[in-house]
Amino acid sequence: MVTVDLNSDIGEGFGDYVLGDDAAILGIVSSANVACGFHAGDPEIMARTFSLARERGVVAGAHPGFPDLWGFGRRKMPFSTGEIERLVAYQIGAAQALSAYAGHPVRYVKPHGALSNMAIADTQIAQAICRAVCAVDASLVYLAPARTHQERCAREAGLITRAEVFADRAYMPDGSLMPRSMPGAVLSDIDAVVARALRMVRGGYIETPDGAQIATPVDSLCVHGDSPAAVDMARALRNRFEHEGIVVRGFV
Amino acid sequence: MVTVDLNSDIGEGFGDYVLGDDAAILGIVSSANVACGFHAGDPEIMARTFSLARERGVVAGAHPGFPDLWGFGRRKMPFSTGEIERLVAYQIGAAQALSAYAGHPVRYVKPHGALSNMAIADTQIAQAICRAVCAVDASLVYLAPARTHQERCAREAGLITRAEVFADRAYMPDGSLMPRSMPGAVLSDIDAVVARALRMVRGGYIETPDGAQIATPVDSLCVHGDSPAAVDMARALRNRFEHEGIVVRGFV
Amino acid sequence: MVTVDLNSDIGEGFGDYVLGDDAAILGIVSSANVACGFHAGDPEIMARTFSLARERGVVAGAHPGFPDLWGFGRRKMPFSTGEIERLVAYQIGAAQALSAYAGHPVRYVKPHGALSNMAIADTQIAQAICRAVCAVDASLVYLAPARTHQERCAREAGLITRAEVFADRAYMPDGSLMPRSMPGAVLSDIDAVVARALRMVRGGYIETPDGAQIATPVDSLCVHGDSPAAVDMARALRNRFEHEGIVVRGFV
Amino acid sequence: MVTVDLNSDIGEGFGDYVLGDDAAILGIVSSANVACGFHAGDPEIMARTFSLARERGVVAGAHPGFPDLWGFGRRKMPFSTGEIERLVAYQIGAAQALSAYAGHPVRYVKPHGALSNMAIADTQIAQAICRAVCAVDASLVYLAPARTHQERCAREAGLITRAEVFADRAYMPDGSLMPRSMPGAVLSDIDAVVARALRMVRGGYIETPDGAQIATPVDSLCVHGDSPAAVDMARALRNRFEHEGIVVRGFV
Repeated sequence: MVTVDLNSDIGEGFGDYVLGDDAAILGIVSSANVACGFHAGDPEIMARTFSLARERGVVAGAHPGFPDLWGFGRRKMPFSTGEIERLVAYQIGAAQALSAYAGHPVRYVKPHGALSNMAIADTQIAQAICRAVCAVDASLVYLAPARTHQERCAREAGLITRAEVFADRAYMPDGSLMPRSMPGAVLSDIDAVVARALRMVRGGYIETPDGAQIATPVDSLCVHGDSPAAVDMARALRNRFEHEGIVVRGFV
Repeated sequence: MVTVDLNSDIGEGFGDYVLGDDAAILGIVSSANVACGFHAGDPEIMARTFSLARERGVVAGAHPGFPDLWGFGRRKMPFSTGEIERLVAYQIGAAQALSAYAGHPVRYVKPHGALSNMAIADTQIAQAICRAVCAVDASLVYLAPARTHQERCAREAGLITRAEVFADRAYMPDGSLMPRSMPGAVLSDIDAVVARALRMVRGGYIETPDGAQIATPVDSLCVHGDSPAAVDMARALRNRFEHEGIVVRGFV
Repeated sequence: MVTVDLNSDIGEGFGDYVLGDDAAILGIVSSANVACGFHAGDPEIMARTFSLARERGVVAGAHPGFPDLWGFGRRKMPFSTGEIERLVAYQIGAAQALSAYAGHPVRYVKPHGALSNMAIADTQIAQAICRAVCAVDASLVYLAPARTHQERCAREAGLITRAEVFADRAYMPDGSLMPRSMPGAVLSDIDAVVARALRMVRGGYIETPDGAQIATPVDSLCVHGDSPAAVDMARALRNRFEHEGIVVRGFV
Repeated sequence: MVTVDLNSDIGEGFGDYVLGDDAAILGIVSSANVACGFHAGDPEIMARTFSLARERGVVAGAHPGFPDLWGFGRRKMPFSTGEIERLVAYQIGAAQALSAYAGHPVRYVKPHGALSNMAIADTQIAQAICRAVCAVDASLVYLAPARTHQERCAREAGLITRAEVFADRAYMPDGSLMPRSMPGAVLSDIDAVVARALRMVRGGYIETPDGAQIATPVDSLCVHGDSPAAVDMARALRNRFEHEGIVVRGFV
C-alpha cells in the first residue's frame, strides 16, 4: 500500500485579515503547517486553526518564520544562528501551548519562507533550527524539503524527519527547487501536476523538467490553499490519489 | 522557621533597550517573573534571562502581559475573556520553550500590569487567565496578589496558588492595593518598608496605613529592580530577613 | 443643483493582506479615506492607493487610527489627549508625504474606528484631534460625523468641516449613530438604503427609524467597500444619484 | 572664521525605554538627528525631542531607518529601492508633522544604520532615498557621509548636501569608514579624538590611520550621546572648538 501525506500552510491571516481558505484546505490535506504569530497568525487564529484541524482529523505542525509580518516572512533577514535558535524556540512553544489549549498538540515543525530558504542554503542555519527543536521537544518531527541540508541536519540532530516534495514547483537537474524567478518554476496545469505527483509518489523520486528521476522518499507533498485555483489543485491531487488507491494520511 | 519568597519582574528590555538591573536583582530575589515578548522582552532577552536565573538558582516564572510594547502593558485594553485566554496561553508556551532551551523551566505564572489589574477587578478575566494556565500546564503555580479574585479563581480552577504582597505599596483599609494615583501609594523610605515587611511576613497579614492587620498568607513579597533605589530596597529587605533568621527561598 | 460627496475607507490592507476592493470602490466614490499605517496600511499600500485615487480623480484624505493592527483600530485604547494629538499628527504627516510622493496631496482628515467613536463621545478627544490637524496643516478639511462633538470642535478650532452621514447605518431618535450591537443598526437592503439616502441628501436631514427628520447638512455619505455586497450598494447609490440628477463630487 | 556643525542621533527611545542622554547631548550639539518611529522613537518621544531641540536652539533633522525596532535598524533588510523610497517618505512626513507640531520644523535628512550603510554601498539605494526627499520636500538638506554615493547622489538629485565626518571612527586609506569589525575602528581616547577632529575641521580633510589626508569639506562632525563616555567626548570636542575659536553652529 502506497501512502503519502499532503501538507499545506494555514492559519496565515492576522487580526481581521484573511489569507487562503483554511476550511476548504483542511478538508483536503492530512497535515497543516500553522503560522506562529511572527510572519503571520495571531493567538486567536492559531487557537481557531488548531481546533479546526482537530475537528477535521488533520495533523498539526508548527510553522515558524521570521518576525516580519509586513514581509510575510519572505524577506531574508541577517539573524545570527543563535538568534534563529531562540526565535524558532519561542514560536514552537507558542504553538505547543495554543495547540494544547485547542486539544490537538502539534506533532511536527516545518520552517517558513525565508527562514526555510536560508536553512536550505546554509547548513549552520539548518542546524540552529534543529537545536531549537531538540531543546524544546525532541519528539517533534522535522518536515524538511527532500534532499536538503535541513533534512540531513535534522537526522544528524537525532530528530525524526519526513521528506517533502512540492507538488506545484519545478526542480533543477540536481534535485534542488527551481527558484521562483526562473520561468517554469511554478506549475499551474492541474492535470500535469497531478500526473507528475502520482509518478513521484509511486516511484519515490523527484522529477526534473527533462524527466530525470532523482531518488528520494516522498513522505509528504506540499500543496497550497491561498487561492481558489490552489484549492482546486489540492483537491484534484487528493481525489486522484484516492482513486488510484494511494492512502493520504498524516506522517505522524 | 519563617520563610518567604522575594519576587521581581525581570527581562523587561527589548532589543537594545535595557530596563532595570537584572543581574543585580537576580542576586537578591528567589523568584523571577520573566516578560514574554508582548509588553516587553524578546526571544534573546528571554533566553538570556532564564539562563541567568538558572545560574543564580532563582525560580523562573512566566509574566504574560498585553501586546502593547509601546505602553509597556500598562494600558487597559478591551480584550474579550476568550482573547485573554489565548494571548496568555501563547506567552506561557513561549516562556516554557525558551526556559526549557535555557535548561531552567518556568514553574509559575504571574500576570503583568494592566492584565493583572483587570484580573483583580474582574472575576471573569481572572478566570480566563486560569483557564489558559490549566490548558497549557496545570502544574504551574499561580502567583496572585493576596486576597484578590485572582487568588480565589486560581484555587477554584484547581491550581496551586501563592499569595503575593507588595513590599513598597500601601494598602487600603479593605486590603486592596492603594491606587498609584493616591498620595502615599508608593513607599520609598527603605527603613520603614523593611520594618513593615518584616511585620507582615512574621505576622501573616497585610498592614493598612492606619496600622490595621488583615490576615493573609504572605508567600511572596514583590520587590522592584527598575532603578538603583529599587535595587537598594530589595537588598535591604533580603539582608534584614536573613539577619532576622527568615529564610528567603522560592515558593516552588 | 444638489451635490453630495461619497466617501469610503480604502488602503486598509497590510503587506500581502488585502481588505476590500479598492479598485472597484475608487470607480464609485468621490473621496477616499486612506489608512495611515497604524490600524492598517503600510507605505507601499499608501503610495499605491494615493496614486490610484489620483488616476481616478478621487479626493484623498488621511484616515488616522489607533496603533493596533491586530485589532484594526477598533479597540478603545486609553490614550491621553496629548498622546492622541501626537499619534494623529504623526499619521497625517506620513499621509501628506506619501500623497505628495504620489502626486495627489491629501485634502482632508477623517478619524478611524475607535478613535472616531471616542471623539464622538468625548469632547476632549475631539479637541485633541483638531489640535493635531491645526498644528500640522490647518488647511485640511475635517470630515466629521454629522451633529457630533467632532464637527463642533473642528469648527471651533477654525477648521473647515464637512458633515458625514452613514448610508448603511441606522440613527437613534436623537440623531446619534445606532450602536452596532443593537438590532437593525446595520442596513443591508440596497433599495431601502438608496431610497433613504436620496431622501436624506435632498432634504438635508438624518432620518431616524421611526421616520423623524433631524436637520443637518449632508455633505458626504459614507459607503463601504469591504465586501462585494458593500461595493454593490455603493454602486447602486451612485447610479441612483446620477439618475436623479444629484452630482456626486468631492467636497474639496 | 572656521565653523563646523556637531550632529548626534537622538530621540532613540521607545515608550518607557530610554537610550542615551538627550538632554545632555542637546546642550552640546548644533544639529539633532531625530528617530522617526521605525527603528526607534515614537510620536511622544518625537514631539518631546523636537520641543527640546527648539528650546536649545538645535537644528532638527529627520533620521529615517528600517522598520525593525527589535534590531534598532541595524539589520540589513532586502527592501527594493521602491520600498525604500516609500518607507523613507513616510518617516520624513511623520517627522515634518511632529516637528511642526512642536514648533520647530525639520530642516534636513540623515539616514540611519543599515539604511545608511546600504546607501553608501549601493548607488541605487542612495538614489532611492534622494527621490523620497525630493518628492516630499526638496528644500530639505541631505546630510551625508563625506565622499560617499549618498553625497554625490543627493547633489545630482538637486538637493543641498552637507558632508559629515565621524569624530570617533577611523577611516580607511581610500577615505571610506573603517568597518566596526576591524580593530581600531572605534576611537575612544578623547584627547586623540579631539586633536584629530581639530585637524580635520581646520584642514578640510579626512585623516587616515597612517596620517594621510583626503580632502573633503567637513561640514558636520558626528558625535554620540548613548553613553556617559560619549557625552564626555562630545563635550570635550565642543569645548576645544570654542577655545580654538571654531564656531559650532547648525549647517542650515
